[in-house]
Amino acid sequence: MTPSERMVEVNGRRYAWPRAPVVVVCVDGCEPEYLVQARRAGVTPWLDRLLSQPGTAWIGDSVVPSFTNPNNVSIVTGVPPSVHGICGNYFLDPQSGREVMMNDPAYLRAPTLLAAFAQAGAAVAAVTAKDKLRTLLGHGLRGICFSAEKADQASVAECGIDGVLELVGRPLPSVYSAELSEFVFAAGVALLQAHRPDLMYLSTTDYVQHKHAPNAAQANAFYAMMDRYLARMEALGAVIGITADHGMSAKTDAAGAPQVVYLQQVLDDALGQNCARVILPITDPYVVHHAALGSFATVYAGSASVAAMAGLLARQPGVELVLTRAQAAERFELPAERIGDLVVLGDHLTVLGTRASDHDLSALDVPLRSHGGISEQKVPLLFNRPLQGLARGRRLRNFDVFDLVLNHARH
Amino acid sequence: MTPSERMVEVNGRRYAWPRAPVVVVCVDGCEPEYLVQARRAGVTPWLDRLLSQPGTAWIGDSVVPSFTNPNNVSIVTGVPPSVHGICGNYFLDPQSGREVMMNDPAYLRAPTLLAAFAQAGAAVAAVTAKDKLRTLLGHGLRGICFSAEKADQASVAECGIDGVLELVGRPLPSVYSAELSEFVFAAGVALLQAHRPDLMYLSTTDYVQHKHAPNAAQANAFYAMMDRYLARMEALGAVIGITADHGMSAKTDAAGAPQVVYLQQVLDDALGQNCARVILPITDPYVVHHAALGSFATVYAGSASVAAMAGLLARQPGVELVLTRAQAAERFELPAERIGDLVVLGDHLTVLGTRASDHDLSALDVPLRSHGGISEQKVPLLFNRPLQGLARGRRLRNFDVFDLVLNHARH
Repeated sequence: MTPSERMVEVNGRRYAWPRAPVVVVCVDGCEPEYLVQARRAGVTPWLDRLLSQPGTAWIGDSVVPSFTNPNNVSIVTGVPPSVHGICGNYFLDPQSGREVMMNDPAYLRAPTLLAAFAQAGAAVAAVTAKDKLRTLLGHGLRGICFSAEKADQASVAECGIDGVLELVGRPLPSVYSAELSEFVFAAGVALLQAHRPDLMYLSTTDYVQHKHAPNAAQANAFYAMMDRYLARMEALGAVIGITADHGMSAKTDAAGAPQVVYLQQVLDDALGQNCARVILPITDPYVVHHAALGSFATVYAGSASVAAMAGLLARQPGVELVLTRAQAAERFELPAERIGDLVVLGDHLTVLGTRASDHDLSALDVPLRSHGGISEQKVPLLFNRPLQGLARGRRLRNFDVFDLVLNHARH
Repeated sequence: MTPSERMVEVNGRRYAWPRAPVVVVCVDGCEPEYLVQARRAGVTPWLDRLLSQPGTAWIGDSVVPSFTNPNNVSIVTGVPPSVHGICGNYFLDPQSGREVMMNDPAYLRAPTLLAAFAQAGAAVAAVTAKDKLRTLLGHGLRGICFSAEKADQASVAECGIDGVLELVGRPLPSVYSAELSEFVFAAGVALLQAHRPDLMYLSTTDYVQHKHAPNAAQANAFYAMMDRYLARMEALGAVIGITADHGMSAKTDAAGAPQVVYLQQVLDDALGQNCARVILPITDPYVVHHAALGSFATVYAGSASVAAMAGLLARQPGVELVLTRAQAAERFELPAERIGDLVVLGDHLTVLGTRASDHDLSALDVPLRSHGGISEQKVPLLFNRPLQGLARGRRLRNFDVFDLVLNHARH
């Protein structure tokens, strides 16, 4: 078998062995319009050149809930949450009955393709912006895996590498900054130069996208920065696939105030205090830029009637859709036992909260932009080589990006 | 009965007699984000002052299809298309079997509240940007009603006024220009000064919104212009309500190319040439800025199986929803006999066409922005007096704007 015929199979999908360094980038919160506007502003010459070739730009569907963890895990496993088990950043653990972060690899039910390639002998590297993702994405990976957030603490024992700040040549960035993502790209270039991995996954943070709408100067500056690093990776021989974990929408009224439906409050008022329990799977330790407000929530009925709750919630202005556990599990390919009796989706301008008193809106210094719903499901799929051999009418997903870049990008 | 207790009833709704000149503005294609970004750019001092008062800014739902004619007619009748009959700009007339524009008042099944107020003795004026709307909105109206597009041709016999160019003091604008809408606002100010109508309806065109995203310099310039005229109307004593006929979304891939599902082509390929007939109700004589591409289509089955067609269309990437005639008529309050066997909705990045050869994309000199779907259903509802006495949890519609400004704005 020649190297070019070697395949790696993981989670029921087969991936061709990379014939050049393959880099997959997940640009957190990259609503396609950011790229359109950055190009129109003339700040992305590399993307311009790339996108002038047919077959390089596609739109795919992310996983719903359109949140960071479920989508990053889907991308590195190639399968939806019903298979890998990670359906939120945060959930109600049915075993313990406690609300916990879903960062623990113990919740992960499928191996990553990064780990599988490493196992098969490939040199693999993964760099995340925030440390919360590192343990999930790096699970079982014998290779390099570190976060920009804790780049100074990376050790060979834990991360397969040390001296990251020196390697990258940049100071440790703040967790709330555009520089956190720039560090990820800079690390990608440095790793390509120093280690030339066969397969590399880079995952940024949506700090800029939460704060700035497409065409804002700060948004264009972010994509100009990304463009410069991607050009350098291509110059180093990389075959590149770019996607996003989710899009991003304005979630305000016309005055710029957050549009929130406080679900726990609605249920408490109608059915009695704490008859039902609302869980917001967007919750994570970093809530300053979205105040834990996203467009996806799940509700555990407790003593309340599921049908009555569903009817009540569906009537709230701003609620786009209410699905039962079974409907949501089927439509969004979610693990049924890890979601509540109902799944509630906010419309494209509306986020869902628990009670007003649970959310600190004071840190929102700009009009709220967030995600989680169906309106943020559309994400770019871009490649620096045209795709070929795609089945006609195939629905593309962001978690097809490794399949597309390894099996369908022209080499 | 004192004037303040006088009510006008029309289409089953009761409206209080205006105690000051009431101006309702329909800002065509006003996605709420345009206002948020214009305010952030600091170009709308009047809106800033207005929106700093609680109770002045609301979000409502437009009619779906989120097109101009059904929504303008809903606004001036206070009822959905199932009552007034206008469900598109264009439709397949079941009587004649021909595809025709829906501009003819013969298709209108309900009186307008403008006509009803005039009938009751109020001085009423309506100004539209394009002439296509004038005949519908002015139907039965004994008052002033003209379009900016044909302002030079306005006669007392037909429009209740002549000498409009002299009155407004501006030249006749091009039909494809921001000036067409500016003429509407300028006419509003001139009419308030010269005629002081009790009730005035101003309806702009979405030329700017089709071309420019929120925060673009040209978009901000449009809203700055609007802000200046609204400030002058308020200074003249007007009670003002502002809404939109529909929102506006980018409809492109990440490279900026239009994302289109050509439905007739899909059906022809699968079921045979012209077994089914796709109608695009966005169609109107002015297609340069959207190439007749919107996110709502209706399909007449002909010899094809409705269920097979529905399944086939629902599987197309970019299609958000396929509804049967009965489902669509119920959900969107449409006249069932004026839509096809199926209604198809594109997702927030996708528009629906017939065949590629039917659409001239060459005139699209900027990335396509369009509307018609559920993603463009959210519109602003703004008032220069806080609203009071609204039932809790009431779903607001853009066609409630006259009810809200006449019955609920604090005077």
